[in-house]
Amino acid sequence: MKTIKIVVAGPRGRMGREAVSLVHNTEHFQLAAVIDRMNDGQSLSAVDGFSGIDVPIYTDIERCFQEVKPDVLIDLTTPEVGKKHTELALHYGVRPVVGTTGFTKEDLARLTELAEDKGIGAIIAPNFAVGAILMMKFAQMAAKYFNDVEIIELHHDQKLDAPSGTAVKTAELISMVRPSKKQGHPEEKETLEGARGATYDGIPIHSVRLPGLIAHQEVIFGGNGQALTIRHDSFHRASFMSGVKLSVETVMKLNTLVYGLENIIE
Amino acid sequence: MKTIKIVVAGPRGRMGREAVSLVHNTEHFQLAAVIDRMNDGQSLSAVDGFSGIDVPIYTDIERCFQEVKPDVLIDLTTPEVGKKHTELALHYGVRPVVGTTGFTKEDLARLTELAEDKGIGAIIAPNFAVGAILMMKFAQMAAKYFNDVEIIELHHDQKLDAPSGTAVKTAELISMVRPSKKQGHPEEKETLEGARGATYDGIPIHSVRLPGLIAHQEVIFGGNGQALTIRHDSFHRASFMSGVKLSVETVMKLNTLVYGLENIIE
Amino acid sequence: MKTIKIVVAGPRGRMGREAVSLVHNTEHFQLAAVIDRMNDGQSLSAVDGFSGIDVPIYTDIERCFQEVKPDVLIDLTTPEVGKKHTELALHYGVRPVVGTTGFTKEDLARLTELAEDKGIGAIIAPNFAVGAILMMKFAQMAAKYFNDVEIIELHHDQKLDAPSGTAVKTAELISMVRPSKKQGHPEEKETLEGARGATYDGIPIHSVRLPGLIAHQEVIFGGNGQALTIRHDSFHRASFMSGVKLSVETVMKLNTLVYGLENIIE
Amino acid sequence: MKTIKIVVAGPRGRMGREAVSLVHNTEHFQLAAVIDRMNDGQSLSAVDGFSGIDVPIYTDIERCFQEVKPDVLIDLTTPEVGKKHTELALHYGVRPVVGTTGFTKEDLARLTELAEDKGIGAIIAPNFAVGAILMMKFAQMAAKYFNDVEIIELHHDQKLDAPSGTAVKTAELISMVRPSKKQGHPEEKETLEGARGATYDGIPIHSVRLPGLIAHQEVIFGGNGQALTIRHDSFHRASFMSGVKLSVETVMKLNTLVYGLENIIE
Repeated sequence: MKTIKIVVAGPRGRMGREAVSLVHNTEHFQLAAVIDRMNDGQSLSAVDGFSGIDVPIYTDIERCFQEVKPDVLIDLTTPEVGKKHTELALHYGVRPVVGTTGFTKEDLARLTELAEDKGIGAIIAPNFAVGAILMMKFAQMAAKYFNDVEIIELHHDQKLDAPSGTAVKTAELISMVRPSKKQGHPEEKETLEGARGATYDGIPIHSVRLPGLIAHQEVIFGGNGQALTIRHDSFHRASFMSGVKLSVETVMKLNTLVYGLENIIE
Repeated sequence: MKTIKIVVAGPRGRMGREAVSLVHNTEHFQLAAVIDRMNDGQSLSAVDGFSGIDVPIYTDIERCFQEVKPDVLIDLTTPEVGKKHTELALHYGVRPVVGTTGFTKEDLARLTELAEDKGIGAIIAPNFAVGAILMMKFAQMAAKYFNDVEIIELHHDQKLDAPSGTAVKTAELISMVRPSKKQGHPEEKETLEGARGATYDGIPIHSVRLPGLIAHQEVIFGGNGQALTIRHDSFHRASFMSGVKLSVETVMKLNTLVYGLENIIE
Repeated sequence: MKTIKIVVAGPRGRMGREAVSLVHNTEHFQLAAVIDRMNDGQSLSAVDGFSGIDVPIYTDIERCFQEVKPDVLIDLTTPEVGKKHTELALHYGVRPVVGTTGFTKEDLARLTELAEDKGIGAIIAPNFAVGAILMMKFAQMAAKYFNDVEIIELHHDQKLDAPSGTAVKTAELISMVRPSKKQGHPEEKETLEGARGATYDGIPIHSVRLPGLIAHQEVIFGGNGQALTIRHDSFHRASFMSGVKLSVETVMKLNTLVYGLENIIE
Repeated sequence: MKTIKIVVAGPRGRMGREAVSLVHNTEHFQLAAVIDRMNDGQSLSAVDGFSGIDVPIYTDIERCFQEVKPDVLIDLTTPEVGKKHTELALHYGVRPVVGTTGFTKEDLARLTELAEDKGIGAIIAPNFAVGAILMMKFAQMAAKYFNDVEIIELHHDQKLDAPSGTAVKTAELISMVRPSKKQGHPEEKETLEGARGATYDGIPIHSVRLPGLIAHQEVIFGGNGQALTIRHDSFHRASFMSGVKLSVETVMKLNTLVYGLENIIE
């Protein structure tokens, strides 16, 4: 496999550190440089936590693209910065793989046009966890055959909101393919309020919050004498890296912009 | 092991059928007769679903005790009948194993005295599923070491009430041994109402209802980097029979009345 | 939805009984007759277990097709009989939905030609459990993104063979889409022989056999900080009926023969 | 609750770091000093990863005990050093909580005598994960009522040995309370060798090894129409800290030596 020359923007963030480690440890990937707000011109190996990774730090992304000529930019910065970086990357013929959020429809339309003009690929994905994407995809497929489904999501007890974004997104995807229905016994009643969970278009969602847990979700379908369960466990933020790797490999073969990892997974 | 001579009351009910089958198929148990409201004097083998089980049917329980002289009465009738049968059994020196509900404290006190006078055992248990009893017992034990716990119970969608009686009983047992507390993040909020479930003394309970499911419960404890889960699956009402068998064996060694299977399980 | 007129062959078998019940209880299905070796001319309602289901019994399938003119034949008989019935059904313009095994490639080629000549659909499926089919399909899809996978199948302890046919079929489907590999640590060793399970093309398979269990399977994928689990629980043979129902509905829209439920599920 | 004054030996090891963090963050615990081979006389806050934790480092444990007069020593060093430290602690009237292995029966007898002479407690535990200890305890209890059981343990694929020590220990504990038996169908056969797992005194053990996983175990009991499952998930080595905390609290109330966390858990 041809080696892919990669620049990582945002190397000191939690996701950025994982991305540097991923690129550094993948045989056909080459970490060529990093983009950071500080330490311009120094070696990354001088920064805490990166000993032995001797690549230059640039604060000026344009100079980096001119001097390093990378194939791919992995951007794990912030919404505002990520948007600017994506545009500059396409301008310089560098394929962007972007994990930041905040792109409007207009942004995406403009960037798609730019990618197609340049004839290169671009991938923007708010969620890089391949396992979670597959869980949602399978749930949507199963819902065509099983009309009754409930979602249980389990997270550590530092999480503020319930239900989780992934649970709601899963329910959304399911409700796109099944007729809207009220589940459970028509006359069921809660003797303790809340027992039957939250409801999204008739789909019950249950949120468990316990210390020790990380991020888990089960989608349970029930029908004639059987149950089908799809479960994703995210034990560590490294789980996002499988999606970053897949995106880097895929972006080399695209000549347009793709939004959402689900659209490059078959 | 010495053979135990047994009479079953209520043989045509769903539980009664299982009990007849249990006694018939257990090597050191002998089915000596059954008590039923109808078919007095006939053989059970003539009744639909009992072919080959040739034991006499009595409608008069006293005559049955006098003629058959059983060691044990298994009673799976109705609250009212069960109460009368229990008293008569003790009176005739037959050890009762009773699965009906509706005994008051006064009933239990009186029957305990009667059992002790006669120097024989008696077991009355509203729930004979050994696995469910163990689940509750373990949950209570674990709660001393893990303060955070949630209960998920899953049943077929013909069940009317949520949460299940077993879930509430489990929460009750847990709340007896742990300090009352509010779980989850102090500032957590539900973006869809009900997501965090029902609450019993601070313990969230989630009720799943899906066609195909039978009767299942998970108790999940979370703490420092770990989770401990206790799950019971009841796939078939035969699950109650392990408790009936245990009770018959245990009642032979008792000389008082025990209420609740949890009190004969160590 | 237009009512579909259905004949069931093999009504007294375990699957046949479920099929009769399914057709009888589905609103847009009409049970028009049954085919059986005995009781020709009688009403099904006279047969043990079918009270209230007043449809004629035919022993001669051709006469049944001529007089009843059904849309669909559901055949749950035996390999030999099923093959003959399928051919006759197509000949009479009745769409067959067949659950028997033993069709050779030549049989299938000939029957496909016959179906296409007549311009009608036919479905032959050795496994009608939609949930199990979906589990296998999802496992195959996930294997493209997760190279490491193990299969745990759990059955009652009356099952003689290990691993189950479904587990081997799942491993087969996975091995078609992922590069062959040896999983686990290259130097792993068993201190108790058999701990790492059986292996099919590098995929470990573990077979659990316990009383009380029915038929369950988990396919677990692991990768960077995450796990993806697909589980199917078959609690009751009624689980096959979802596939029969789907097949009856689908066969009305086909004009060729389809072998295997996986080929009508998207 | 009275504050407990604690010294941690081995602060730079993986477990030691967690212990320092535990003591530092527990309200009624006071970290008074640490014992380390290097940096004598410096503040722990100067060592990488401990910024803000300003307690003295001692290389001489005796001098530490004389000057600091702690209530408890938490020792997470190495077998040889741990043994010496335990003896010295008891000698100085400091209650040891020790996580190292390698104590012989003779060592334990001698140290128990020493503890009783001094009238103080001591706890030595090769496994501090309270959840795992409870899982084993519950498994042993359940085995009295369910004779059929299988163990599935799941770990990351860097683990060399299969089955895990915890799985074997669990099987050992179960075999102490149930009659030895061959499980499964008497005539069951493996069509792929190893499918039925390893066997310890008739108990099948299955070892799953997948990247992404951490350390998990399920003990599944099956019986009449039901299953009882006890599962422990260790997501992070912090899981050991609940046992260290419990041990520190318990050791204050003991006046002898206890070996094994299972013996202080009821």
